[in-house]
Amino acid sequence: MPRPLRYVGVIGRGGLVAIRLGIVGTGKIVRDQHLAAIAGNPAFALLATADPAAAAMTGVPHYPDMAAMLAAHTDIQALAICTTPQVRGQLVLDAVARGLHVLCEKPPASGMAQAQAMADAAHAGGVTLFAAWHSRFAAGVEPARAWLAGRAIRSISITWREDVCHWHPGQRWIDLAGGMGVFDPGINALSILTALLAEPVTMASASLEVPDNWQTPIAARLAMRTASGLPVAADFDFRQQGPQTWRIAVETDAGTLALDLGGAHLTLPGQAASPPAPDGEYAALYARFADLIARGESDFDLAPLALVADAFLLGERHPAPAFTH
Amino acid sequence: MPRPLRYVGVIGRGGLVAIRLGIVGTGKIVRDQHLAAIAGNPAFALLATADPAAAAMTGVPHYPDMAAMLAAHTDIQALAICTTPQVRGQLVLDAVARGLHVLCEKPPASGMAQAQAMADAAHAGGVTLFAAWHSRFAAGVEPARAWLAGRAIRSISITWREDVCHWHPGQRWIDLAGGMGVFDPGINALSILTALLAEPVTMASASLEVPDNWQTPIAARLAMRTASGLPVAADFDFRQQGPQTWRIAVETDAGTLALDLGGAHLTLPGQAASPPAPDGEYAALYARFADLIARGESDFDLAPLALVADAFLLGERHPAPAFTH
Repeated sequence: MPRPLRYVGVIGRGGLVAIRLGIVGTGKIVRDQHLAAIAGNPAFALLATADPAAAAMTGVPHYPDMAAMLAAHTDIQALAICTTPQVRGQLVLDAVARGLHVLCEKPPASGMAQAQAMADAAHAGGVTLFAAWHSRFAAGVEPARAWLAGRAIRSISITWREDVCHWHPGQRWIDLAGGMGVFDPGINALSILTALLAEPVTMASASLEVPDNWQTPIAARLAMRTASGLPVAADFDFRQQGPQTWRIAVETDAGTLALDLGGAHLTLPGQAASPPAPDGEYAALYARFADLIARGESDFDLAPLALVADAFLLGERHPAPAFTH
Repeated sequence: MPRPLRYVGVIGRGGLVAIRLGIVGTGKIVRDQHLAAIAGNPAFALLATADPAAAAMTGVPHYPDMAAMLAAHTDIQALAICTTPQVRGQLVLDAVARGLHVLCEKPPASGMAQAQAMADAAHAGGVTLFAAWHSRFAAGVEPARAWLAGRAIRSISITWREDVCHWHPGQRWIDLAGGMGVFDPGINALSILTALLAEPVTMASASLEVPDNWQTPIAARLAMRTASGLPVAADFDFRQQGPQTWRIAVETDAGTLALDLGGAHLTLPGQAASPPAPDGEYAALYARFADLIARGESDFDLAPLALVADAFLLGERHPAPAFTH
């Protein structure tokens, strides 16, 4: 659950010393979000990047893989691991075994057993492991959680519909086994859901649409419930053209709370819609990562991944027409 | 992990007082295994059974559901919940909320989020929750674990091939969403695997064969690895005619250890095969359940279920011909 953020650097003999960082996997999300967030945070100094399929891009040395990068930069203290999910887990385990602090892009592992092994290894090794559920740091999420804490919730409805052709053009990893399909964005909604609620959520049933040329679902309808029996419905679809929808609506005894734009925009009952705040999710992620390292803590919540695993485990699959993105 | 078993009853004012037990779900496994194990254990007194689809069978009162049974027998202290997995989880959560100790047939929950909620609720409520991985109590498992503890393992190979038509005739729940298909027996192998090893196991990749008229896999090939990198291969198949195979072979620096007959039959390198011991798995399960209640402890290991969830999450699905059982 997101906590109030505060800036905590690492204090060395000479004063504030930046954490020496490497990035593993330099795909779209790194170009779109990580680099600016790191550049804007004096707690981090980016030393190098690694990716077998990308060129150098940042003015720092670039390597074909994590091992080569770490061999050349033995002073790296922390990694942001942002590869595709299929290879992320083993890299994280290797990094933790080397005593490095790790920020894991979401989803933090390719499966639950691996995630548990990662958590155990980080705990045993005394390093910080951070599951970077970026949507939990969207501007509306923490105010929504605080407002809901005093209300009786009746039901929750999630609508997460976006155009995979726009957001993941040609990214085949998302439709291959292990790529999670529409749960790649959908897990963001589940990360917000599990941060908003004070009680656990479980999967009751799921209906998954799987295109003939995909291994993963392109759409999903989920029926979840909280421990106290409240219904939570979710509608995920990757074929949304026109306006995109990332909305969580919470019915309460005091009216409907709505989070739109993936958590950025909060509307409380009876209040005028406030303008969306500027996107500060990744800036907040890196502030939190620095904070965790300074405190010697980890933040590795697996609740969103467990719900995705359960949707695959329990879900009824229905064929859908082939779809190319 | 199985520990040495010892008999511990519950000591009341009048001496040894049996734990008052109810059974929820009275299908094949209850008739085949649970009733005899309970009858043979003086630590338990069976008070009643509940199942909407079965008739009374044991000389004790029978009810259409758990709520009716508990309303009529308010002195029940513990439940064995043996329904199909699709409905088991919520019943366990309800039972734990009533302050009852619970033995859960395997798999203990329909998903990982639910399993975690069950563990948390039992911990908060101070009741015993026991995930009854019966294969861990097969005669060869504990001796195998002890022998392996002193050896260097090189690789592990699991072959679990049985005839669904023989073992689950007409049981449609096994091929419906949430029924787990060939992982229903396969999870037994995974429960032994995770009990044999001192380190965690994760799923690297999986190939699943799914018949056109099934929602769940009828066969699976799994590539797992241990935290130290040892390969673990598994071959599960539900279409095995003729001899049935439930075998785990462990290659070590001191030769090959083989567990056959689902863990009942242990062969150590250079030793003559010992005759299979009589089947005592469910007797040992109930002894362990009584022991846990007496100690005020739970034993709710989710490692086998996590591996199954991961096989569904990561697995590549391949169509297979329709199959009726």
